[in-house]
Amino acid sequence: MLKIGVADTTFARVDMARYVIEVLENHLPNAEIIRYTVPGIKDLPIAAKKLIDEYKCDIVITLGWVGASNIDKLSYLAASIGLIMVQLLTNKHVIDVTVHEDEAKDEEELLEIAIDRAKKHALNLIRLITGGREALTPYAGKGLRQGRPDVGPIKE
Amino acid sequence: MLKIGVADTTFARVDMARYVIEVLENHLPNAEIIRYTVPGIKDLPIAAKKLIDEYKCDIVITLGWVGASNIDKLSYLAASIGLIMVQLLTNKHVIDVTVHEDEAKDEEELLEIAIDRAKKHALNLIRLITGGREALTPYAGKGLRQGRPDVGPIKE
Amino acid sequence: MLKIGVADTTFARVDMARYVIEVLENHLPNAEIIRYTVPGIKDLPIAAKKLIDEYKCDIVITLGWVGASNIDKLSYLAASIGLIMVQLLTNKHVIDVTVHEDEAKDEEELLEIAIDRAKKHALNLIRLITGGREALTPYAGKGLRQGRPDVGPIKE
Amino acid sequence: MLKIGVADTTFARVDMARYVIEVLENHLPNAEIIRYTVPGIKDLPIAAKKLIDEYKCDIVITLGWVGASNIDKLSYLAASIGLIMVQLLTNKHVIDVTVHEDEAKDEEELLEIAIDRAKKHALNLIRLITGGREALTPYAGKGLRQGRPDVGPIKE
Amino acid sequence: MLKIGVADTTFARVDMARYVIEVLENHLPNAEIIRYTVPGIKDLPIAAKKLIDEYKCDIVITLGWVGASNIDKLSYLAASIGLIMVQLLTNKHVIDVTVHEDEAKDEEELLEIAIDRAKKHALNLIRLITGGREALTPYAGKGLRQGRPDVGPIKE
Repeated sequence: MLKIGVADTTFARVDMARYVIEVLENHLPNAEIIRYTVPGIKDLPIAAKKLIDEYKCDIVITLGWVGASNIDKLSYLAASIGLIMVQLLTNKHVIDVTVHEDEAKDEEELLEIAIDRAKKHALNLIRLITGGREALTPYAGKGLRQGRPDVGPIKE
Repeated sequence: MLKIGVADTTFARVDMARYVIEVLENHLPNAEIIRYTVPGIKDLPIAAKKLIDEYKCDIVITLGWVGASNIDKLSYLAASIGLIMVQLLTNKHVIDVTVHEDEAKDEEELLEIAIDRAKKHALNLIRLITGGREALTPYAGKGLRQGRPDVGPIKE
Repeated sequence: MLKIGVADTTFARVDMARYVIEVLENHLPNAEIIRYTVPGIKDLPIAAKKLIDEYKCDIVITLGWVGASNIDKLSYLAASIGLIMVQLLTNKHVIDVTVHEDEAKDEEELLEIAIDRAKKHALNLIRLITGGREALTPYAGKGLRQGRPDVGPIKE
Repeated sequence: MLKIGVADTTFARVDMARYVIEVLENHLPNAEIIRYTVPGIKDLPIAAKKLIDEYKCDIVITLGWVGASNIDKLSYLAASIGLIMVQLLTNKHVIDVTVHEDEAKDEEELLEIAIDRAKKHALNLIRLITGGREALTPYAGKGLRQGRPDVGPIKE
Repeated sequence: MLKIGVADTTFARVDMARYVIEVLENHLPNAEIIRYTVPGIKDLPIAAKKLIDEYKCDIVITLGWVGASNIDKLSYLAASIGLIMVQLLTNKHVIDVTVHEDEAKDEEELLEIAIDRAKKHALNLIRLITGGREALTPYAGKGLRQGRPDVGPIKE
């Protein structure tokens, strides 16, 4: 049985995991979903690592939320490097969903971004874990975006 | 018996460990608390690693203090990456409390931030180590803050 | 038989893999090309790692696309560090093709850069994997550029 | 017998090792001091690693010097991450003394900073290696500074 | 017999390896020099790693060239971290020569910097590999520079 880890934070201002789990349950009703909640983005790498090592997840999705300050961006960088390390140490995908507070002009837009990004990346996760390395190839170079409408490919 | 590491620095201007230990002793009277004090934030990763490897701590909390200059921020980034590496190497949580001198308008506010952040993260540590991966899930996406009042979730 | 990994993203706005594969098939008709498509640049390191570890590729080329914002640049940095780690962990080359949206004045120029860079780096890959460590030595210090015309060496 | 590594650079403009060795010899007359000089700050991590692995040092102090430009700061960041990695790989402390050329208004002040920082961190090293994890605890949160007068704790 | 690796790039605008090899051949006529040319700076870490692991080099010198843009600087940072990792994984020195295009006011000066830096670091390599950890100690804190005239120590 497929095991899917969902790691999220109490720092986030949107319960993105709810939307991710909804998508996962719709498309993979037999998968086991294992959730891990931590305080903030810098705790996500260890949560992802434990979901893979201790809970035997086949793939993980992390749901991070980042403030607008320069310090927040450095934390984002450290967390991003950590999440890549987790993948290299375990040879599993960790799909990294991150919302930055300075991406949107107001809370309403931020909420839309968070929900859209979480759902679309849940679909990415499903494609990768069920379809493998070429499941996303029909969309390669197509300018897909999560959190925003797709921009599409540049016309050749 | 639970062993909890507390790593702090002589660079900090507030004895945050005192507040952390107070919270830990109130909630986990039977836990053993093992303290490790180092000069500055870049020494925290090795202190955390030793607390786990040599002192057999089940979890660690680090209490860092960062100056306002660009150089300080780079040190913060290096230390943050290091603390994440410690966690990935040991599969243990290291709860990272950091106070930045440019977060507050004066010393009084900085003191309040330091104490509040230390106490709240001590509670996070307790929840994670006693309740496990879903102990914080009721607060996921709730916009919790340490050092400041919670901002709360965005209304959906 | 030579196995060559091609990792690309759905975020990219140009299907660079198409141009890479064209070059590879022309020059190495007997090589097996194994493609891996992921959502974005931060997913490329694990794709490259899996292409080497699981699909036994002898060398990999990654095709990244990076937005213009500061956040995008931090993601680029994390991905770059990750791609270097992959190489150090596997002792294989991962040729890293990256296009930045702020490199060009308009989409037309961006398209030209992407195609030129992808093709030229495909040739670099071929030289390295078939000719070894000195295959590129005749061009050392010659100011070669991918995505732009070569600038040439400084006249001595 | 205690073995202490001292790693320094030819790039530095002050022979900080002289002051470090003076302090070490006064306080630990029986310790063996092993010196390693490299060109610049990015060579310090391997010097520290070799001092621990090949020369069996129990602890190392590195004496770095960093220019004022943005490039220099990136080198500082890379070196800092490297020095933390050394510690995590060896489970030994590496006390990192760094002087930045833009810290002072003139050479005289820079010299004072370098000497003060080197001496004070030599004392930190001595306390850590002879007194262990709580040797510095009486100074935790006390706002100690190296290179400058202590700023002291914030009044509670 | 001593084996010395020389890794360089086709991106560079000066054939720095030529000057390095000249110095090496003059001072170490019996050493074997093994060259490895790659496209750009981010490929240098794997070249250095392979020179050590596969070609059994005792020490490596890398010759990097970095453009003037912010993106180039991030690539420099990633490469620098990678080169430090190579050293920590192999316990060998990798002497890192890097020229930044924004260091000089014109091409002529850039050429001078590149040649001077390459030659001086070749001498550093020779001293380290033949004289060991204290070969450079007479120059510690002496304000040596590569690519520029030495600035000398601050007068005490």
